[in-house]
Amino acid sequence: LTKSDVVKIVLENRQSEPSEFGEAFAPANIALAKYWGKRDEELNLPRTSSLSVSLGEYGSYTKISQNGNGDSYTLNGQAVATDSTFARRLGLYLDLFRPAKDFFFRVETVNSIPTAAGLASSASGFAALAFALNDFFQWHLDKTAISILARLGSGSACRSVYNGFVEWQAGIEESGMDSFALPLPHTWPDLCLGLIEISSEEKPVSSRAGMKRTVETSVLYKSWPEKTEKDLERLKTAIEKKDFELLGQTAESNALAMHATMIAAWPPLLYWLPKSLETIHKIHRLRDDGLPVYFTMDAGANIKLLFEVKDMDDVRCQFENIKIIRPFDRPGEKV
Amino acid sequence: LTKSDVVKIVLENRQSEPSEFGEAFAPANIALAKYWGKRDEELNLPRTSSLSVSLGEYGSYTKISQNGNGDSYTLNGQAVATDSTFARRLGLYLDLFRPAKDFFFRVETVNSIPTAAGLASSASGFAALAFALNDFFQWHLDKTAISILARLGSGSACRSVYNGFVEWQAGIEESGMDSFALPLPHTWPDLCLGLIEISSEEKPVSSRAGMKRTVETSVLYKSWPEKTEKDLERLKTAIEKKDFELLGQTAESNALAMHATMIAAWPPLLYWLPKSLETIHKIHRLRDDGLPVYFTMDAGANIKLLFEVKDMDDVRCQFENIKIIRPFDRPGEKV
Repeated sequence: LTKSDVVKIVLENRQSEPSEFGEAFAPANIALAKYWGKRDEELNLPRTSSLSVSLGEYGSYTKISQNGNGDSYTLNGQAVATDSTFARRLGLYLDLFRPAKDFFFRVETVNSIPTAAGLASSASGFAALAFALNDFFQWHLDKTAISILARLGSGSACRSVYNGFVEWQAGIEESGMDSFALPLPHTWPDLCLGLIEISSEEKPVSSRAGMKRTVETSVLYKSWPEKTEKDLERLKTAIEKKDFELLGQTAESNALAMHATMIAAWPPLLYWLPKSLETIHKIHRLRDDGLPVYFTMDAGANIKLLFEVKDMDDVRCQFENIKIIRPFDRPGEKV
Repeated sequence: LTKSDVVKIVLENRQSEPSEFGEAFAPANIALAKYWGKRDEELNLPRTSSLSVSLGEYGSYTKISQNGNGDSYTLNGQAVATDSTFARRLGLYLDLFRPAKDFFFRVETVNSIPTAAGLASSASGFAALAFALNDFFQWHLDKTAISILARLGSGSACRSVYNGFVEWQAGIEESGMDSFALPLPHTWPDLCLGLIEISSEEKPVSSRAGMKRTVETSVLYKSWPEKTEKDLERLKTAIEKKDFELLGQTAESNALAMHATMIAAWPPLLYWLPKSLETIHKIHRLRDDGLPVYFTMDAGANIKLLFEVKDMDDVRCQFENIKIIRPFDRPGEKV
């Protein structure tokens, strides 16, 4: 099946009737049990389920409207070069939704993710875009359908459709119609994330390529599905019982195991920089000294701390330029 | 079975008749396919076979004689404190061979391994000791028996019984009588090793403890036996065909996969220091630039380069304080 086939299934017989404009916001998300390895490269179908926490107000706002002659994209108010990787990827995604070959889009995206945080914006970006398309074309799709459409842009985008804790259920169908995100019915107001930027440079190998290389060449990857399944159960228990130690240990162990599968790939995938390792050793020393702080990492050099609000001052003291986010600290907001 | 049971089997009905002194030299060895994980903690029986290259003149020379009152050990001419880890480990090993409870040993060991090289000396040390005991007690054991006795002191010591390329066959017997080293019938005069010391500090977790923690807690370890079996076959092909790229890739990939299993253990085992990672990235950059240099690492922070003699000057240029060893460059010596 192609992406185009899936879009047809999702939209059923809906017409795409453009309104003046469509707009939406979607949060970034940080995975505590990682999405690492696809069973279908075209449809971004994962080998395992994954679990993330969304970042509330930190994410992408996207406005979409019709454009006269060719697509036009802006990112944080700046025009995006049409020959950039970003523009090409966006254009290919929008091709799935053009009502006619000569229908063009104007897409304006503003990321509220702190630029110095080293956070990927493709998840919130494609989720916001899928919501905005739904708004623009007046499809009235439910969130499950939006999650599937967002996945076609970037796998982890399917989780950015919800706030709070979110599970992406891997599913087993060839069409991926059972592979979408669902929110977990729990909040954790005391939970804090700390973003530590190690490098702002583009990573040497994209997540997509890194994932593929790992699945194809890393013998240790064979144990990854078992590892992630165990970690998913542990994380759900931790979230349900508010067991922070279990949450932190599991998330850190899952991230380290993901990097381990990459390190054992060939050629080796070493996203860690010396400064990443220095920070990891520091976190371990702090923990040995009694500060309950854990971390997770994605396919890159940057580090995301996990800690509780009671330890915020101690953590802030230890890490310069840390950006602290409290995913559940938004009064009155439903998850 | 205990170590003592195995010693009885190995010695059969031989008497231990002390001569004036016994002495022997055994080379250090560097594994290209690692020994990582035991199936028997007491007897140092491995889960997988492993393959190493011995370092020729770099190793341990040991002289053993009877001592009047209590054991006495010297290392490189210095007395060894009786309450040190080293002395306790040596004493427990010697307990296996005392002809009477009040029989004591004087053990003098000289390591010719460059101290700044960050190489473990327990392998050459226990191999030299097993040979020296054989000489001292006039047992006339063959090398297979010596290899088994050396293993009881330190697993990898069983490989230091031979020069050149050596395979430690894991074996399947409970007694471990089929778990010993054998030499491979190939030399590789152009092969060079480069020792790079990253840290001279004692490692935070011993190899023995690290191995145990990995086997017990790292889900990715489940794929390690398959990885090592594949790598062993590749290494044998590489050695037979003098395919340096295959040798280098396989050895590096095996070492990285071993570290990957540790990184995925809990608590995480991170022997790498920032400087290790910096050096690894440098090696990868040099390789991208066309210099065929690979590396291996043991359970520690130090790095051992693999390259061919034609690239020796280029390699030396790039790494300060590198110690270069040519394991096969000893004219007239048989493997």
